[in-house]
Amino acid sequence: MSESHANFIDLNDYPVEWWNNLLALAHDIMQNPADYAQVCKGKIMATLFYEPSTRTQMSFQTAMLRLGGNIIGFDNPSSSSVSKGENLKDTTKIVSSYADVLVIRHPLAGSAKAAALSADCPVINAGDGGHLHPTQTLTDLLTLKELKGTLEGLTIGFCGDLKNGRTVHSLLKAMKCYPKNRFVLISTKELGIPAYLRDMLHAAGAQFAEMQSLEEAIGTLDVLYMTRIQRERFSSEMEYLRQKDVYVLDHAKMLRAKSDLVVLHPLPRVDEISTEVDEDPRAVYFQQAKFGVYIRMALIKTLLDANAAAPALLPGRTVPGAVCSNEKCITNSEHYLPKSFAGLGDILECDYCDERTLM
Amino acid sequence: MSESHANFIDLNDYPVEWWNNLLALAHDIMQNPADYAQVCKGKIMATLFYEPSTRTQMSFQTAMLRLGGNIIGFDNPSSSSVSKGENLKDTTKIVSSYADVLVIRHPLAGSAKAAALSADCPVINAGDGGHLHPTQTLTDLLTLKELKGTLEGLTIGFCGDLKNGRTVHSLLKAMKCYPKNRFVLISTKELGIPAYLRDMLHAAGAQFAEMQSLEEAIGTLDVLYMTRIQRERFSSEMEYLRQKDVYVLDHAKMLRAKSDLVVLHPLPRVDEISTEVDEDPRAVYFQQAKFGVYIRMALIKTLLDANAAAPALLPGRTVPGAVCSNEKCITNSEHYLPKSFAGLGDILECDYCDERTLM
Amino acid sequence: MSESHANFIDLNDYPVEWWNNLLALAHDIMQNPADYAQVCKGKIMATLFYEPSTRTQMSFQTAMLRLGGNIIGFDNPSSSSVSKGENLKDTTKIVSSYADVLVIRHPLAGSAKAAALSADCPVINAGDGGHLHPTQTLTDLLTLKELKGTLEGLTIGFCGDLKNGRTVHSLLKAMKCYPKNRFVLISTKELGIPAYLRDMLHAAGAQFAEMQSLEEAIGTLDVLYMTRIQRERFSSEMEYLRQKDVYVLDHAKMLRAKSDLVVLHPLPRVDEISTEVDEDPRAVYFQQAKFGVYIRMALIKTLLDANAAAPALLPGRTVPGAVCSNEKCITNSEHYLPKSFAGLGDILECDYCDERTLM
Repeated sequence: MSESHANFIDLNDYPVEWWNNLLALAHDIMQNPADYAQVCKGKIMATLFYEPSTRTQMSFQTAMLRLGGNIIGFDNPSSSSVSKGENLKDTTKIVSSYADVLVIRHPLAGSAKAAALSADCPVINAGDGGHLHPTQTLTDLLTLKELKGTLEGLTIGFCGDLKNGRTVHSLLKAMKCYPKNRFVLISTKELGIPAYLRDMLHAAGAQFAEMQSLEEAIGTLDVLYMTRIQRERFSSEMEYLRQKDVYVLDHAKMLRAKSDLVVLHPLPRVDEISTEVDEDPRAVYFQQAKFGVYIRMALIKTLLDANAAAPALLPGRTVPGAVCSNEKCITNSEHYLPKSFAGLGDILECDYCDERTLM
Repeated sequence: MSESHANFIDLNDYPVEWWNNLLALAHDIMQNPADYAQVCKGKIMATLFYEPSTRTQMSFQTAMLRLGGNIIGFDNPSSSSVSKGENLKDTTKIVSSYADVLVIRHPLAGSAKAAALSADCPVINAGDGGHLHPTQTLTDLLTLKELKGTLEGLTIGFCGDLKNGRTVHSLLKAMKCYPKNRFVLISTKELGIPAYLRDMLHAAGAQFAEMQSLEEAIGTLDVLYMTRIQRERFSSEMEYLRQKDVYVLDHAKMLRAKSDLVVLHPLPRVDEISTEVDEDPRAVYFQQAKFGVYIRMALIKTLLDANAAAPALLPGRTVPGAVCSNEKCITNSEHYLPKSFAGLGDILECDYCDERTLM
Repeated sequence: MSESHANFIDLNDYPVEWWNNLLALAHDIMQNPADYAQVCKGKIMATLFYEPSTRTQMSFQTAMLRLGGNIIGFDNPSSSSVSKGENLKDTTKIVSSYADVLVIRHPLAGSAKAAALSADCPVINAGDGGHLHPTQTLTDLLTLKELKGTLEGLTIGFCGDLKNGRTVHSLLKAMKCYPKNRFVLISTKELGIPAYLRDMLHAAGAQFAEMQSLEEAIGTLDVLYMTRIQRERFSSEMEYLRQKDVYVLDHAKMLRAKSDLVVLHPLPRVDEISTEVDEDPRAVYFQQAKFGVYIRMALIKTLLDANAAAPALLPGRTVPGAVCSNEKCITNSEHYLPKSFAGLGDILECDYCDERTLM
């Protein structure tokens, strides 16, 4: 039964205290790697990557190997028999009977939760389409905790495409749970954060400002979280040419920044951070990638150790006739899945992908 | 020399007693996994998958890792340099000098035997085209032995495309070696078992019946082995629409079945078993996949331990001018292979693919 | 810092004594494998194969596993996120923070050196386009040392496409460093060794002869190093048809060879060695592939043990405005790389790809 083991689908399935325990464990692993080198001996992790993400997959594999465990998996669905019409349930059911922990990446929202419904072992969400990528957020939290010494009272700038960037949304949601943080949202008007996030920040009483110039904002920041704006996201080619350099971090802009700024980036970066910045000690995005291994080690160990009650996967209810309106929701591709919604008046929120549908 | 180590190419290369020993070893591994967790320490298994079969490959990899061994291999011939004109002999020769046991899957019949001819370590056949897939049959035998408690006196239904299904043919041949089994062959007229198999069952004095309705047959069965009928196998689109539901196992049909029926399927299933059946405790196909790991553990251990005389790979003789008439036989692609036939009057049976050619 | 650890980019970065130590270590590993079965326990090797080379990759993986280490990596750049615009520097930087040693294969010349510039762990060159493949050369040296007992005083024939064959060029350069070797270069006129190599042999006072007939040359040889001539390398189709058999090694030609000849081939072979030769004990190309595992074990162990000063990666100097004239040089694809040249009068030699550019 899927309820009998812990999964890691969404950061919000766990309280902040659980996050903090994980960060503390990751810190201890960094300090004392030898103490953890055998804790997963004899265990197998399967990575089911329905879309390629080489770096995320290697980060998980490294984490498991550093814990003394073993790895199986696939990363190339087109050459894989799992692409030949087998549903997600069957693949999950079978592979979870081979392995002790299952890491899934899939292009559809809610797929990791769907996998957890039938898996016989813990499932970790390594990215479900544009929906969640919670181990990236854990990585970001660990990076800030280790390099700033605290997750409180920070002025955090987010720069780039804030409308579509799931890593930005997740980190914003996470950091608003820690007191006294202040957010500076740096983007074009068209690519600002979604309305629901703005509402959430207001409701949480979070301090935040929206700005259009990285150059103006950078001097106030303790943390700068860079993301890319894809060319096609600008309203026109002319707008792209006019604005593209505004959101590129270079040496000149770094001159305006505090001496203890840290610059994060979920990677891969393309042009949004000039390579000249790499030598700046405030550029910590490569360290950030390495922190990703430690937090994944902490996560794998925690889930394999878990024997406490796990969060319910589908806490909502069945609503006759209701279907999720998100065409990229896994429930619209894998029809055997039980549909489940949280009801908010005449709005239904899908338990898989969090999309809200008006009844 | 290839003769100096044991291979596993065809179930029929070994006597029933050997099969039974393997089933007993798999049972012991299941009961006492810790006793076997290090038996392949320091050993390497190479999986050479010339066509993708993710699940079979992961099953073998899991088996080797659970024995404490290591894994290398490929699963994507199109992106592999082995596809660039290197013959099977050279690849086998080289990889078998790296590894301690070699698992091969290949689209051509007889390829595993061809590989064994030049390999410097034991070779396991993980599927050679439409010819054999003997570790699936071992998996099926272990599933029946564990869940029915015996391999004798069972009434076993095979449903679906019995003409083309190699897993069906193999399991039929294997189960007729155990006493008092009765076979119920459920299919359309066009997709019944091949004539040679019918002859073999007659010759063995096996009891069997051919039926067209799963609904009628199901009540008499101890075991139901489901396989898919592909749409294009029906004689016409009209016939497909008329008959497609007849060979789909659903909750309604399960109501007619014995309480101790077990339903097997080699997987992947597509539509031939409704997902509603998955919750039925008689649906054991996911357990069956897990049994596949244990029987492969037993097989790998047995072959690596083996020092007894191995079965001859090419017991037949060279016949001047004779070539195998099966265009999918490996001897018709890899021309350096010595041709070898068993002679049956004026019929030659290919030692690689078992095809019979009239001289 | 990249300078703080040893890399293996080019055989010529190390003195002949270092090569000899590596050969001696490989010999000891062959004799006493159990002594080395745990020396890399807890270490991770990443194989970054930007172009597929299944056999080379499996050879490295086997080497690391036989030393007790673990492996991660990719072999299929088209299905890998690293192909999505991430530069080599970032991928190297990140993966080298996961792993303890990094093995790279890449289609562009100088790529392994470029990777070493940013890597946080030792980098091994597993082939950088048509430029170098130094672990193949080490493999060849080990094969000769083990099977001929010496690397001195040998008459070594190279046969095939000597113009384009990088394995031939490398082995020639290496063997001329040992005394009293004599080289017989067997090829068409068009496919003889490049002028710079001929100059190098003259300068080193090496004895060598150029011949067009393998049949005539073979009787004088202690070693025959075979390579392929691709059909399109001949000056015309007529020329191909006339000459193709001249450069094929078969049983008839072997009859003219010494009884203690050894025949090497970097593999894969296509038609240039007839399969009938495989049974000849003088055909050692399969043994050669196995020696490749042992020399890679020695190399990995040596680099992971290294704490001595490593060779400088870019010993040359920056020349304002100068760019490498080799369009397949990595510096012409990855523009952030510092250009660096050795100056030879008005000729600049690129520190990455060794191409000479006239200023």
